[in-house]
Amino acid sequence: MADVEAADNAAFEVTEVNRVRRVHDRGRYDRQTIYEILDAALVCHIAYVIDGQPYCTPTGFWREGDHLYWHGSSASRMIRQQARGIPVCLTVTHLDALVMARSGFHHSINYRAVMAYGHAHVISDAAEKTRLMDNFIDRIYPGRSKLIRQPNKGEFKATTMMGMEIETASGKVRDKHVADEEEDYAGVSAWSALYPVTQVLGAPQECVRQIPGLPMPGEMAVFQPGTKLDEVLTETYRATFKQP
Amino acid sequence: MADVEAADNAAFEVTEVNRVRRVHDRGRYDRQTIYEILDAALVCHIAYVIDGQPYCTPTGFWREGDHLYWHGSSASRMIRQQARGIPVCLTVTHLDALVMARSGFHHSINYRAVMAYGHAHVISDAAEKTRLMDNFIDRIYPGRSKLIRQPNKGEFKATTMMGMEIETASGKVRDKHVADEEEDYAGVSAWSALYPVTQVLGAPQECVRQIPGLPMPGEMAVFQPGTKLDEVLTETYRATFKQP
Repeated sequence: MADVEAADNAAFEVTEVNRVRRVHDRGRYDRQTIYEILDAALVCHIAYVIDGQPYCTPTGFWREGDHLYWHGSSASRMIRQQARGIPVCLTVTHLDALVMARSGFHHSINYRAVMAYGHAHVISDAAEKTRLMDNFIDRIYPGRSKLIRQPNKGEFKATTMMGMEIETASGKVRDKHVADEEEDYAGVSAWSALYPVTQVLGAPQECVRQIPGLPMPGEMAVFQPGTKLDEVLTETYRATFKQP
Repeated sequence: MADVEAADNAAFEVTEVNRVRRVHDRGRYDRQTIYEILDAALVCHIAYVIDGQPYCTPTGFWREGDHLYWHGSSASRMIRQQARGIPVCLTVTHLDALVMARSGFHHSINYRAVMAYGHAHVISDAAEKTRLMDNFIDRIYPGRSKLIRQPNKGEFKATTMMGMEIETASGKVRDKHVADEEEDYAGVSAWSALYPVTQVLGAPQECVRQIPGLPMPGEMAVFQPGTKLDEVLTETYRATFKQP
């Protein structure tokens, strides 16, 4: 499959939309950082507007180059609205730690987040839509699109694939330990610590109607119980998109 | 501290805004379900609009009764905009499992999500703001607001507390195993399974400048390494808001 990386690690232009204003030393605009945060995630939150009312909908997504893709029911409100080419903001957040400081002001969390801005459009070309439906499965489970039943006519029609070019984006990262006011370290008797937070896979629960003797595909070896989901997703993403 | 539950478990009214349209058997409108999903979370995503551009910002939050609270820098774009009383949608999502089916159409994830709709407002009363700043800390770390240094004048001014009454809300839950088309169970040779996903705490990393001999507060006992974060947050929420 084609390498979907941009030719270089150019930064996204900083505009009034994507500029990180608060704690701006946490801001990141380079594609490598932004891509890594996106490609380690399965679920994003998409903001869009219908009749002046904002909605924030969680959904699965993935990235190819500077394009983001997601899908939905063709009849869904989100998809019908986004199909009009409206502006959206697609956000991914990884929670990495709780940070307990000696003042409320310096309590924090460690996180990696990306806010990507663009206009959503429907993927109307049937061949492109089929390719993307396969990629959505393979991006999580490499090679799986070849094992499963392909969409029938009704399923194909009922599913809408949406795409969006990243017009601009920003990343924001906090990856520090406790950072208190100098006088508080000795002056405040509050036990302070950082608690790492990780999202991990459990042991697979096979479908009770599994065909007897059907082996687990070799590609699933990376889905080890106890493994961090963001690391698994990064690995399966690379397996699908970065090898010939 | 006062019990913040509503007097009954009345459902939120179903309107054109909050009605779950797709896979509507996953829709939940009762307060108990919606509260449980919210109170098990630390981070939400808030959708709001500036000059027609939607934004989706991740931030910490908590609930008291039918009110949701979050905070931000007084100078932040999000806070300055939301202070005008604009409509927002605050969404919480817990990812619970990856579900590998025998067709792309039936691949899914298990999740618990809430979308809550309302109008944001600034908490301008100083006493109320102080109470909420303490609650934000205590909601995560019970009793901690009494241990730490209180905000100084500059910190108090630099922090804006925002609140929103939940005008309407919907929950959406998938908690099933693989659910394939009947003919695919035997007809498709694709190994199928459910992988649980959990967000867990790691072992605490104490601040290197800890006052020597300072003991971990007893309230932190629930922060056991390996514990699920949503369960810890549910427990600390109850410890702070449901006991006299």
